[in-house]
Amino acid sequence: MRTRLVLRVKAHARVAFQGELGAFSQRAGTRIFGPDIDALPCVTFDDVFDGVTDGKADLGVIPIENSLAGSIYQNFDLLVRHPLEAIAETYIRIEHHLIAHPSSRMGQIRTIYSHPAALAQCRRFLRRLKHIEERSFYDTAGSVKHIRESGLRDAAAIASADAAKIYGMKILRRGIEDNRENYTRFLGLARKGVFAQGGAKTTVVFGLRNEPGALFKALSVFALRNIDLTKLESRPIHGKPWEYLFYLDLRSDLNSRECRNALRHLREMTLYFKVLGSYPTF
Amino acid sequence: MRTRLVLRVKAHARVAFQGELGAFSQRAGTRIFGPDIDALPCVTFDDVFDGVTDGKADLGVIPIENSLAGSIYQNFDLLVRHPLEAIAETYIRIEHHLIAHPSSRMGQIRTIYSHPAALAQCRRFLRRLKHIEERSFYDTAGSVKHIRESGLRDAAAIASADAAKIYGMKILRRGIEDNRENYTRFLGLARKGVFAQGGAKTTVVFGLRNEPGALFKALSVFALRNIDLTKLESRPIHGKPWEYLFYLDLRSDLNSRECRNALRHLREMTLYFKVLGSYPTF
Repeated sequence: MRTRLVLRVKAHARVAFQGELGAFSQRAGTRIFGPDIDALPCVTFDDVFDGVTDGKADLGVIPIENSLAGSIYQNFDLLVRHPLEAIAETYIRIEHHLIAHPSSRMGQIRTIYSHPAALAQCRRFLRRLKHIEERSFYDTAGSVKHIRESGLRDAAAIASADAAKIYGMKILRRGIEDNRENYTRFLGLARKGVFAQGGAKTTVVFGLRNEPGALFKALSVFALRNIDLTKLESRPIHGKPWEYLFYLDLRSDLNSRECRNALRHLREMTLYFKVLGSYPTF
Repeated sequence: MRTRLVLRVKAHARVAFQGELGAFSQRAGTRIFGPDIDALPCVTFDDVFDGVTDGKADLGVIPIENSLAGSIYQNFDLLVRHPLEAIAETYIRIEHHLIAHPSSRMGQIRTIYSHPAALAQCRRFLRRLKHIEERSFYDTAGSVKHIRESGLRDAAAIASADAAKIYGMKILRRGIEDNRENYTRFLGLARKGVFAQGGAKTTVVFGLRNEPGALFKALSVFALRNIDLTKLESRPIHGKPWEYLFYLDLRSDLNSRECRNALRHLREMTLYFKVLGSYPTF
């Protein structure tokens, strides 16, 4: 699926992502931009978008979809509201580990911390344990950091192998996720116009008139040109109940004639239209 | 938008919903089924679906979409996995109030409890308050109940007027939601075959071959018959990364010839197909 080794960015480019050091988003950033980036952990997705927009960061990385849980809808909404564009995508297999202090043993663990999504993805493993309390935390890697910094010996976290390594912690149990077909798709972000657009995929967002056949006609511009859609998502428009914006991923390069023609055709029938990016896969 | 007064159900029908007494889902249940139902509060959406499936409840009510936040995706997934069908829909305007003990005054309040979605929908109001701590709770009405039962005088909850009334509490501030265009759509559920199907809307779910133009062809069966789509949603199929099920709301009655023809046509090209319900709006 990868089309190039890494995207060429300047040395020590500051890459913003949500979560602590060791988050899956950081790994996605390294996959896309290479190892010589400066990681810029952020508390919220809003902070990632604002950081890149304001220039505090050069680049950003956000999760956009998980193969089990579905789209990260908040990030679709944020993409429309910021003057950023997608410049790359990558897919990371989400492998969860049970992580504790190096001196802790499995039998000592009484509390397990992690992000609610990670706890939910390890339901089968957690159900087998007895007398364990689950605690929701804002971040997977952050829960490893918390256990380390608080010196807890009777607690463990569910997080990535990277997080265990960064905080000098031990993996008690490997690969505890229920479903191994657990992948997250990430997008690399930059301010508009900084990177050349183009690649295997193009993402657009549009709004349509509220009339029968409107979506069918919109999709016809791609069907007529044999352009494959890999994803269609709808999100409500704030203040206009039951009207939607549609997010569409095309397997098509914005630099190709067929893609440009299809999008020109689409704009004839949309009330709102924006290209969110055209990018390679890493 | 309402087509009948209420759906005729037996007296004291047990109606399962997520949340405590006074939840918006309970109000939706009364709107659909009338005032003579027995409310059956449940902790999770899973409990609502299991309760109706197992016969502990006669009927269920679930939120399926909010005009600001979008679909309640978990309930789409649960609809496919349970032998239930949608028999009614209704729309409730979500009006949030700040609710406290009858003897509390605004100046005393130091902590505000509610469901994270309700806290997020009252962001502007909360930002104006100083020295207030927000606490996430599992349910809006449940947070009113908690304050009542714990006898807290320096805490308030964000919830419905119904919740204030049920727990004998006082509304300190009315209509504190940021956006008044805040509606939630609810579905009434029953076991398959208990109620006659039919009404202004029909909801179906289907899976398609992963090939160019597949969705376009699927939507053509409605466009060719001038059947209006009011909603299209995609959800990932577990274990098949980047393959989706599509959920479609049609403004069409399953008992009409055009609807039956369109769905027969659709089944010719789907790998998976299920009618989730055809129902009136209350």
